[in-house]
Amino acid sequence: MSKNNLPPSGMRDFLPREKYLRQYVMDVIRSEYTINGFTEIETSEIENLANLVNSDGGDNTRMLFKILKRGEKLKLDEVPKTEDALTDLGLRFDLTLPLSRFYANNRNELPAVFKAIQMGNVFRAERPQKGRYRSFVQCDVDVIGDSTNLTEIELINTVVRTVSRFALDNLVVKVNDRRILKGYVMAAGFDENQFGDIAITLDKLDKIGKDGVIKELLGKQYAQSKIDKLLEISDTIAQNGLAAIKQYSPEGYQNIKTIIDVTSAVQSFAVVKFDHSLVRGMGYYTSSIFEIYYGEGGLAIGGGGRYDKMIGKLSGVDAPACGFSIGYERLVDILLERNFEVPGGTRLALFYQESDDLTAVINHSIALRETYSIVSVFLKKKKFGKQVDRIKNEGFDAFTIFEPDMGNMEIKDFND
Amino acid sequence: MSKNNLPPSGMRDFLPREKYLRQYVMDVIRSEYTINGFTEIETSEIENLANLVNSDGGDNTRMLFKILKRGEKLKLDEVPKTEDALTDLGLRFDLTLPLSRFYANNRNELPAVFKAIQMGNVFRAERPQKGRYRSFVQCDVDVIGDSTNLTEIELINTVVRTVSRFALDNLVVKVNDRRILKGYVMAAGFDENQFGDIAITLDKLDKIGKDGVIKELLGKQYAQSKIDKLLEISDTIAQNGLAAIKQYSPEGYQNIKTIIDVTSAVQSFAVVKFDHSLVRGMGYYTSSIFEIYYGEGGLAIGGGGRYDKMIGKLSGVDAPACGFSIGYERLVDILLERNFEVPGGTRLALFYQESDDLTAVINHSIALRETYSIVSVFLKKKKFGKQVDRIKNEGFDAFTIFEPDMGNMEIKDFND
Repeated sequence: MSKNNLPPSGMRDFLPREKYLRQYVMDVIRSEYTINGFTEIETSEIENLANLVNSDGGDNTRMLFKILKRGEKLKLDEVPKTEDALTDLGLRFDLTLPLSRFYANNRNELPAVFKAIQMGNVFRAERPQKGRYRSFVQCDVDVIGDSTNLTEIELINTVVRTVSRFALDNLVVKVNDRRILKGYVMAAGFDENQFGDIAITLDKLDKIGKDGVIKELLGKQYAQSKIDKLLEISDTIAQNGLAAIKQYSPEGYQNIKTIIDVTSAVQSFAVVKFDHSLVRGMGYYTSSIFEIYYGEGGLAIGGGGRYDKMIGKLSGVDAPACGFSIGYERLVDILLERNFEVPGGTRLALFYQESDDLTAVINHSIALRETYSIVSVFLKKKKFGKQVDRIKNEGFDAFTIFEPDMGNMEIKDFND
Repeated sequence: MSKNNLPPSGMRDFLPREKYLRQYVMDVIRSEYTINGFTEIETSEIENLANLVNSDGGDNTRMLFKILKRGEKLKLDEVPKTEDALTDLGLRFDLTLPLSRFYANNRNELPAVFKAIQMGNVFRAERPQKGRYRSFVQCDVDVIGDSTNLTEIELINTVVRTVSRFALDNLVVKVNDRRILKGYVMAAGFDENQFGDIAITLDKLDKIGKDGVIKELLGKQYAQSKIDKLLEISDTIAQNGLAAIKQYSPEGYQNIKTIIDVTSAVQSFAVVKFDHSLVRGMGYYTSSIFEIYYGEGGLAIGGGGRYDKMIGKLSGVDAPACGFSIGYERLVDILLERNFEVPGGTRLALFYQESDDLTAVINHSIALRETYSIVSVFLKKKKFGKQVDRIKNEGFDAFTIFEPDMGNMEIKDFND
């Protein structure tokens, strides 16, 4: 019998070793978020399709997994047969849309300032490729209902402390404000309605360099003089830092200054700094934006910002909001590459023989669990050497062979 | 703007309080399973549809959520338009089929005796009703590759210890063996191929009583004499217990006797006893079957058994297997009804005012986290009395108001 035993394309199963790391990472994130005053909610993985389609989700709405109608609702004989007529549900593509829906539905039962944790799978029908999965975990913290920048400060402080738990050095948080960006784009002579388009190109400064930006903006038919002015301002800000931006957005300046001052003072795990070239693609951000980077190369392992208009737009209930999302899959990939060892107790294998008294075997295993954090019982095989090699490979730290008198049992530690 | 902000029919969102309990229950189950030597894996929530359809899943295969093909694969203009032609993926309806597929795919990297934990969402397009959900959590432990009843003993011992962690009294584990059932059904004169059908009716003995069973079997056109004989044997076993079944299945007798003797000796959280009327509907069980009940009424909160043929049938790779699944949703419902208090630390709210130094506020919150397990920072509002009432309702245990000198801060405990 020939069977396809692989998971579907772009989906993954996880073997014990990887699952153990993944679970540990989730547990640490959950625990650190919780200590810092956030409370977890859970939303349905399946959403009404109309909510997903009408969500402003950009590209994500073109990568939906749509679920076929069932029973009498499915009318295969009728015309016209469109995707809309055939489907009624879909898998969520992020956790923000469900959060908005959840907040609108439950706001009377939620705190006035709602500090939410959400962790779970999201689904996108992307073309599968290395590092891109069609089902992956997101770990979000969001604060709904607070328009002060205590929110940004707590989010950054919480995420930095969380990431620091994985022994990653060289953490950097870059902070910017969309109002600052807008201020200097308009100071260069662009119109307000061109800002979004300009921002998309500016976002690539790191990748394509100044010449690339000039070329792309020229390609978009913007005037050479405005482009030159924009890059001149950008250079000045790059040289002079935060002080140079006050004129372009006094509110943005004050906001970013407070965030950087306070988050730098209350922790020493990450450098927090202003970066005028930080854009973040999503158009829904209204002011503060931030990303956290790891290592020399500067790999982003999380990002977020303030989106004061989105909850209202998605759910019909206005509320200021700000969120930070850890790039869970990237974080796990980094930890796997670094051979990160999950801290944890000792795994002991207890071997017994068929002639042994099973009750005594189990009782010994229970007693051993007082000392060893994990105890597994195995029937001893004829090729015992091979069996021992195998459990060693499986991650066991030690083994012992059953004796009726526990005092006679010798623990063989693989690390000795 | 009017929006539908409810989750889809039969799906659920979880508010912080319920999510906190749900997460605690999952954490305890995971931790207890792990201590006992099981290792967790994770499988994709989305399966290739062909695997689900050809799975022997009975009713569950009629309750599939099927996913519409995407892009070029979806040919809406072509005939014939059938569900098969339109869909390629589906959501899993249990964790056993994915486990079989996973085992077949990864067996070379897995232990010879593979003790697996799987916890996750499964999906069934059932008619929504109270206590029935279209998305719900299953928590399974399975042992693949061991044909000895050490497996049954460890599964029962592990699940009993796990459930006992939730302070549930009156735990009873009922044990039976399909070979015993078969033995006495055939001793009553029925044919081997009638066993499955008879078992389905016997399974209802608890619910419809002896008269109900007779009526149903007569309705199925079985001979009165055989039915009488069956109930006579059943009565004798009910009166005389385990000893009375030896003649119908010596292997079954020895198996059940060992399981009951050992699991009774190694723990005192649950009574383990033989119940000849335990059937469990699923036809795939090959010998041992068991269920765990809670309380006087005897509400089943978990069940399982040995299914030595299924892995081979599903995946093409033969392996003995046995599993036990905790009815997670029912367990959570019971704990909610009993107002089960999740053990945990103290939640403190720290209020500050706009004029306060934010750095000092955050530093104080960090210092307080040494003493309080959760510290949330809030801006103090004008109607402070109401704000305090609200956080009390949200589950906070205490609050304090920021002072530059922490020594001057008074902790007001709601429980004093």
